[in-house]
Amino acid sequence: MLDSDEFFETFGKLDDLTYSDGVIPKKYKELTGLSISILTRCEECILYHIQGCLAEKATRQEIIEAIKIGVMGGGSITYPSARLAFKTLKDLKVID
Amino acid sequence: MLDSDEFFETFGKLDDLTYSDGVIPKKYKELTGLSISILTRCEECILYHIQGCLAEKATRQEIIEAIKIGVMGGGSITYPSARLAFKTLKDLKVID
Amino acid sequence: MLDSDEFFETFGKLDDLTYSDGVIPKKYKELTGLSISILTRCEECILYHIQGCLAEKATRQEIIEAIKIGVMGGGSITYPSARLAFKTLKDLKVID
Amino acid sequence: MLDSDEFFETFGKLDDLTYSDGVIPKKYKELTGLSISILTRCEECILYHIQGCLAEKATRQEIIEAIKIGVMGGGSITYPSARLAFKTLKDLKVID
Amino acid sequence: MLDSDEFFETFGKLDDLTYSDGVIPKKYKELTGLSISILTRCEECILYHIQGCLAEKATRQEIIEAIKIGVMGGGSITYPSARLAFKTLKDLKVID
Amino acid sequence: MLDSDEFFETFGKLDDLTYSDGVIPKKYKELTGLSISILTRCEECILYHIQGCLAEKATRQEIIEAIKIGVMGGGSITYPSARLAFKTLKDLKVID
Repeated sequence: MLDSDEFFETFGKLDDLTYSDGVIPKKYKELTGLSISILTRCEECILYHIQGCLAEKATRQEIIEAIKIGVMGGGSITYPSARLAFKTLKDLKVID
Repeated sequence: MLDSDEFFETFGKLDDLTYSDGVIPKKYKELTGLSISILTRCEECILYHIQGCLAEKATRQEIIEAIKIGVMGGGSITYPSARLAFKTLKDLKVID
Repeated sequence: MLDSDEFFETFGKLDDLTYSDGVIPKKYKELTGLSISILTRCEECILYHIQGCLAEKATRQEIIEAIKIGVMGGGSITYPSARLAFKTLKDLKVID
Repeated sequence: MLDSDEFFETFGKLDDLTYSDGVIPKKYKELTGLSISILTRCEECILYHIQGCLAEKATRQEIIEAIKIGVMGGGSITYPSARLAFKTLKDLKVID
Repeated sequence: MLDSDEFFETFGKLDDLTYSDGVIPKKYKELTGLSISILTRCEECILYHIQGCLAEKATRQEIIEAIKIGVMGGGSITYPSARLAFKTLKDLKVID
Repeated sequence: MLDSDEFFETFGKLDDLTYSDGVIPKKYKELTGLSISILTRCEECILYHIQGCLAEKATRQEIIEAIKIGVMGGGSITYPSARLAFKTLKDLKVID
């Protein structure tokens, strides 16, 4: 549904374009996307951007720094989201 | 006041640490900080992170990409914040 | 609990009144409620207002336009909520 | 700046399209835009959508109902925004 | 306007009731209101609840603790709001 | 993971400190934490602070007043969170 509709198609393309390689490399954009996902406490976005980070070969430490930026900006109400991110990293064997 | 109090001192140091050079270079952290500032529509944060971006020699184009990430994530209610960011860049002669 | 307490009773009545037929017809208020639910990413509110829209005979196309208003205003972090709305419409056989 | 850049051009067009006449008349979309602006406490958005409402011949009473929907959804932290909306309506001689 | 309209009258009364003396003393409710105002970054709310705190004889230290709760919950994007609160306390000679 | 990392250790300690007994008793801080959790619609935070309230011997009525402060501040989009809080209180036999 979201894909075949012109609005969502344009919106989706714009989102893809925003996160594609530019003067800021895609890896850093995905890390930013993860920080934003933590800060806005968007669970699906966390999973999506963790996969994006891994696809761009972001390291475990880079991903953890991105999570911290989200927590620092958004405060302790983002803790459950940070925990979800760490659980996901564990499930994906990125961390122990 | 905020500086001499132990809570704010620790909180401030943690924030500085989060945005300092790490496995993610400080430049990309400041750009992320700008994306977050746009998305959360925090005017003072926008000015603060634009200055951080410039201090880290982020280019005009990198700054603009960071603004776009904030707008894309946060939608049209972030437009006034994006406008403020562009106005600030203009005042600082970063853009024409 | 929420119903027998005076605060929640008054709050609930005020909410009902706000969404009842007025100079703005109830159908358009329910569509607005859906836009707001998408934008604020409130899952229960999405289900509630989709049912409200359908009860007021809002068409499939009107409901889709209301979802778009929410996504446009709130950006890509509302995507999971839009997806939930479309899934709900599918489950209710409103869309294919 | 925002107009000449392709991202902002596309984003802006998508926003215009979303708020243009559709199966939901533009008047009701502008009223929804006002409700959202109150709820998200976006001052510039409030001024923008009040003008949009007036351009679509929304009545004083319709505008007031839209403000109430925003306050009801977003709670007492939206009060300063509702006050700004009423002050704007007064300045524009829409209300006494 | 907001006072003479039935919706706003009821909403305002409900808000007054919520913040009036109950099993939680009004002083602690005002301090909670201040924490919420910091966390939601509502400038007018900050001024309003600081005055409420002072009217209830909250001490300087209690007010500062309430500000910290807001900052802790909402993260570094609440810093400008905390700064506004401290500036207000200074202007009111509550702190040096 | 979160505990052995220095950032999360410091952040967690700061959070614990903020919510510990001070000039504002811990009981009232936990009640404030609950109000904030309702307003920010953070489900895990609601469970966490309800337990904190109970550990501090907050009464049923105090907890209910704290929930109302959150709903009043955050509006009807917090209703699902209030419902979760009441369900939790029921499960814990705090209310019938």
